[in-house]
Amino acid sequence: MTLTLPPHTDEESLSAALDDFAAALGPAAVLRTEPEVREFRDPFWPAGDDTYAPSAVVMPETVEQVQEVVRIANRHRVPLWTHGQGRNNGYGGPAPRVGGSVVVSLRNMNRVLEINDELAYAVVEPGVRWFDLYDALQAGGHELMLSIPDLGWGSVVGNSLDNGCTYLPYGKDFMAPCGMEVVLADGEVLRTGMGAMENNPSWHLYKRGLGPVLDPLFIQSNFGIVTRMGVWLLRRPETYTALMLRLWNADDIGPAIDIIRELRLSDTIQGVPTIGNGLGIASQLTPRSQWYDGADPIPDEVQDRIGRELGVGRWAMRFGLWGDADMVELRLAKIRKAFARIPGAEVLATPYSGQDIAQAKVAPHDKVLAGIPNLDINTMTGWYGGEEGGHIGFSPVLPLTSEAFLEVHNLLRGIVEDEARLDYIAGSLVINERSVVTVAMIIFDTKDEAQTRRAYEVVRKLATEAGKRGYGEYRAHLDFMDLASDQYAFNDHAYRRFCERIKDAVDPNGILSPGRHGIWPSGARDV
Amino acid sequence: MTLTLPPHTDEESLSAALDDFAAALGPAAVLRTEPEVREFRDPFWPAGDDTYAPSAVVMPETVEQVQEVVRIANRHRVPLWTHGQGRNNGYGGPAPRVGGSVVVSLRNMNRVLEINDELAYAVVEPGVRWFDLYDALQAGGHELMLSIPDLGWGSVVGNSLDNGCTYLPYGKDFMAPCGMEVVLADGEVLRTGMGAMENNPSWHLYKRGLGPVLDPLFIQSNFGIVTRMGVWLLRRPETYTALMLRLWNADDIGPAIDIIRELRLSDTIQGVPTIGNGLGIASQLTPRSQWYDGADPIPDEVQDRIGRELGVGRWAMRFGLWGDADMVELRLAKIRKAFARIPGAEVLATPYSGQDIAQAKVAPHDKVLAGIPNLDINTMTGWYGGEEGGHIGFSPVLPLTSEAFLEVHNLLRGIVEDEARLDYIAGSLVINERSVVTVAMIIFDTKDEAQTRRAYEVVRKLATEAGKRGYGEYRAHLDFMDLASDQYAFNDHAYRRFCERIKDAVDPNGILSPGRHGIWPSGARDV
Repeated sequence: MTLTLPPHTDEESLSAALDDFAAALGPAAVLRTEPEVREFRDPFWPAGDDTYAPSAVVMPETVEQVQEVVRIANRHRVPLWTHGQGRNNGYGGPAPRVGGSVVVSLRNMNRVLEINDELAYAVVEPGVRWFDLYDALQAGGHELMLSIPDLGWGSVVGNSLDNGCTYLPYGKDFMAPCGMEVVLADGEVLRTGMGAMENNPSWHLYKRGLGPVLDPLFIQSNFGIVTRMGVWLLRRPETYTALMLRLWNADDIGPAIDIIRELRLSDTIQGVPTIGNGLGIASQLTPRSQWYDGADPIPDEVQDRIGRELGVGRWAMRFGLWGDADMVELRLAKIRKAFARIPGAEVLATPYSGQDIAQAKVAPHDKVLAGIPNLDINTMTGWYGGEEGGHIGFSPVLPLTSEAFLEVHNLLRGIVEDEARLDYIAGSLVINERSVVTVAMIIFDTKDEAQTRRAYEVVRKLATEAGKRGYGEYRAHLDFMDLASDQYAFNDHAYRRFCERIKDAVDPNGILSPGRHGIWPSGARDV
Repeated sequence: MTLTLPPHTDEESLSAALDDFAAALGPAAVLRTEPEVREFRDPFWPAGDDTYAPSAVVMPETVEQVQEVVRIANRHRVPLWTHGQGRNNGYGGPAPRVGGSVVVSLRNMNRVLEINDELAYAVVEPGVRWFDLYDALQAGGHELMLSIPDLGWGSVVGNSLDNGCTYLPYGKDFMAPCGMEVVLADGEVLRTGMGAMENNPSWHLYKRGLGPVLDPLFIQSNFGIVTRMGVWLLRRPETYTALMLRLWNADDIGPAIDIIRELRLSDTIQGVPTIGNGLGIASQLTPRSQWYDGADPIPDEVQDRIGRELGVGRWAMRFGLWGDADMVELRLAKIRKAFARIPGAEVLATPYSGQDIAQAKVAPHDKVLAGIPNLDINTMTGWYGGEEGGHIGFSPVLPLTSEAFLEVHNLLRGIVEDEARLDYIAGSLVINERSVVTVAMIIFDTKDEAQTRRAYEVVRKLATEAGKRGYGEYRAHLDFMDLASDQYAFNDHAYRRFCERIKDAVDPNGILSPGRHGIWPSGARDV
């Protein structure tokens, strides 16, 4: 057995910690040999490179075991790295920022603790996947549904804490999560909001509390391990109408963005729409080789042909409406009228009843917005490399205006195509009424190490160039976390320095996820 | 001049600090004599009692001056207490928790820094009142409106940071605020969210950032002084319909609560409805003496008569709808249908056009939900004492269910009427789809010191008794902050201890608002 050691930790301390974990949690809860540990690497990172390889994995099943894990880590000064499911692909998956960290995988803390029909919420442990919560709602015959992301295998808690998106109402602005239990670095259990009062029934109902509001402090942070979270659910509606906007010309995206903003501001469009270019949708449906065999980026005329032949256009927006049939009909009429200002633009509508949703009688591409988890979109990584495909993304936040969108879109496309010579696959998440996250999705063949390295290289370039223009990422891959964080430099990194002060106060030994989104404990800072 | 001295501060240090403030900000920016300083006391607290009296007031006009103020306070170890406008009546107004603190009044930081029409937001300094922002929108001819609270004289920033309510869409769950600038205890300037990046145009558009989300950490806290905040605005709608639900029987409130929950969960009711009992509305319109001259609480049969004669019923709910006329009409039909299940319940609707709102052609009682600030409701404090009336409230958060509402309502009414022998004036704010804040409003005659003391005494009792049953306050008067905070005792006050660790890390001398909502710096803790 060759362990990847974390910095400042010798083999003896690490082994002693692993023995203590095994003594406290049982030997089956500690993975310390290959191939078990190998599964917890970034699936898309070059296989021979140990930069982000964990030394071992511990899998607690209870809050008490999580408390034991942090106490042991403190004793031996071993860095931990936590995930719910670790399906954070494109951002590093289950792998830690600091090579040799012990991964705390919460996959076995997978209980749905409560489903409340009257008040429409659930309470989950961090290992609960979208699949699991969906299954629990179906099995219990609850007339409730869940705002979900594209891939159903991830953790509800983990996704929320990484600022991952979901697409139904409650998908935006951290609306779904409410009330947390957190194990702190010293092993203490904190409950946030109304949960700070024993037996307070509003813990998962009211977003604040008395005093400072802490839930959002645990987003993308390393101040504690969230072991329980409330999540708001939706009453199953009378109808759900799946919508697709098709735009046939590459230039239609500008006016479309401004129309989308107005439809959001007037509360006509609900949920979180996603807009992709034709290549983005083609990558989910077909391999690249079907369309083009040049090594250069796919030219515009071929993109036009793909859009026509697949029937997706140059840009397509996936969105939906939920509610009583009469309300949905009114909203849809307003949406159609608004987009009619773009010549040739089409809004395709597929209506479903609440009964259809309950019985999962929904077409595959309409499932996500029906709250039915799946893995369909995962095929997109096969664009270049078939089964061995990987992806990373660069995801800056922009104002929801045509001007900002076109500026950033042209910048990103230019760098990806002209410098990296890769296809520019664009997806955009309309996060709220005023902002959009545009994702430059870089797909590569993981068997092709040169292409893989080039993909990571180009994202570094994108982060730097966008940063110069005042655009920053909402979430970053392990390999760019520091670079992404570096862009947030106002007043000599006042934000980061403030977070570091909190970090040092609540985790003085720096054992919890050091380096997560640029926050390092005192011993490990460059500055 | 007799200064009220803060604990652990001698007259020399305080005087030296005040001299330094005057040197840095100019003498006019430092109030250190009566009657100027007296204005910054709690207007409802017994006049001869100095418990919450400030020693002096400083009024910075710029961020740089705020930085100077905290640096000087650190040098002399003088506690500060910050407000935007200090119109926090019922919770202590402008007065500090620690007697002798220097009040930092931000009333002169009153610039509207930006109004953005395309993206529908404004950026304000903390001294900007609801009146001021409204006036700026009107003066600039902006087709925008603002979600406002009942009283227009308060600070937009201050209200948000105290978890104060506003009633239009964006009124719930901290939806309106987005992106802050904060002066920290050491004088450093922090910008949150996307503002942590220089010139990032999404600062006031996207609610999160890269890394831990800090905005909510500055709610009800003493970790910094917010000097700038974004606030989301609404496009002025085609129509606004003011609504009032009248319930004629005291018992109708139970079924009404459950209907309201379902109308919220289905997104039929918008904004933040408020429900008051008949006495609550009567207190805004008439003096108590018009109805009853007994010293005992007003009996049910007189309450029935008041409801009938004023036309407000035993309970009335104020709410509204905003949007296109066809959408509003549909929503209203659904609302009427739902409440028709309660015999005798009536929904009164008053429609206004967007043009009416723009020209403020709205009846007085429909103004708040039209976003037109006023002070009308302030008359309620005259119930017992005429011009000299005061109020305090006990405001627990409850699940939005008839069961929880009736349990707490009966508990509070019993204590207020049977023990304090005061009228039970109830107001409830339906904060979101799942929770309600019910306010037991205690009105008293400030000239009557015995009645005043009895009012404060009964709130202490309410906090303790509700706390035993798992119900906690969302906001507390200076005099009950510690008691309210004491109720949040899970795991030996893990929440408070966590906040204290942050406090000590970011404000080691404990100069910023010590004791705010129960968070004390290390030198001043009982425990």
